[in-house]
Amino acid sequence: MTQEKHTISLMVENIPGVLSRIAGLFSGRGFNIESICAAPTMDRLVTRITITTRGDESIMEQINKQLNKLVNIIKVQDLTETDFVEREMALVKVKAEPGNRAEILRLVDIFRCKVVDVSPTHYTIEVTGTAEKLGALLELLKMVGVKEIARTGSIAMAREKK
Amino acid sequence: MTQEKHTISLMVENIPGVLSRIAGLFSGRGFNIESICAAPTMDRLVTRITITTRGDESIMEQINKQLNKLVNIIKVQDLTETDFVEREMALVKVKAEPGNRAEILRLVDIFRCKVVDVSPTHYTIEVTGTAEKLGALLELLKMVGVKEIARTGSIAMAREKK
Repeated sequence: MTQEKHTISLMVENIPGVLSRIAGLFSGRGFNIESICAAPTMDRLVTRITITTRGDESIMEQINKQLNKLVNIIKVQDLTETDFVEREMALVKVKAEPGNRAEILRLVDIFRCKVVDVSPTHYTIEVTGTAEKLGALLELLKMVGVKEIARTGSIAMAREKK
Repeated sequence: MTQEKHTISLMVENIPGVLSRIAGLFSGRGFNIESICAAPTMDRLVTRITITTRGDESIMEQINKQLNKLVNIIKVQDLTETDFVEREMALVKVKAEPGNRAEILRLVDIFRCKVVDVSPTHYTIEVTGTAEKLGALLELLKMVGVKEIARTGSIAMAREKK
């Protein structure tokens, strides 16, 4: 049983109920959605949804077929087999005491993050990149003391053919 | 009837079905979810979900109450009334012809974006910021020619009290 990671991109009509039906389709098959991003596109009537999940090939095929059958779904793309760009963002609030501020700012510099909020006791850091990059930074920030984290989950886009 | 924007942060158990129930709670009341981000936290058993929506105060209160009653939901926070940091990310694929590449790179520089993929005919740009910043950049990129866009939707975090 291969539990390959899948990244699925959906274009759907921007109306109440669509998201619930999509999520229900996954959970009905015991498939956990690892991350999901949904936001409007340039056309306010269309929402783009990116889902990452893990599961074996045959069930994944079934889900793709079912997704294609749902009304209000305009396009389904399983990016996994193609060449694509994938990125996510996180906000990380870390303890910033006089003794560790320099170390935090070194990490911010190395990982090309931004400090987006400062209080006398905490920094809030914005980081973008692959899941691997975010994971690596988080491991290092854990040693400083992470208070809170919010990740967007992945968004993805097929590369143009060269 | 005020249609105020609400940003809601949820901590939920990372199990199939939770997302579908949350989305169903909104659509059942005719509330459209404008954007949603869901991704695991440092604790793999816990997923953090950020939802933005618009609607009048009284229905929003009902939804907050219902969310608090759902099993598998650990914490509900309507950030709207508090001081919070909010950010989103987008990938934007634009046509990059010899005549407009310099202009695109100027915009990338001004908006502090990154070019994350290049083909002979297209650039893919990563941008982070507030919804307003993303909107302003998109308006300008439209003139160059946007082929495709994927937005994460907002993630948000309460500021530390000074």
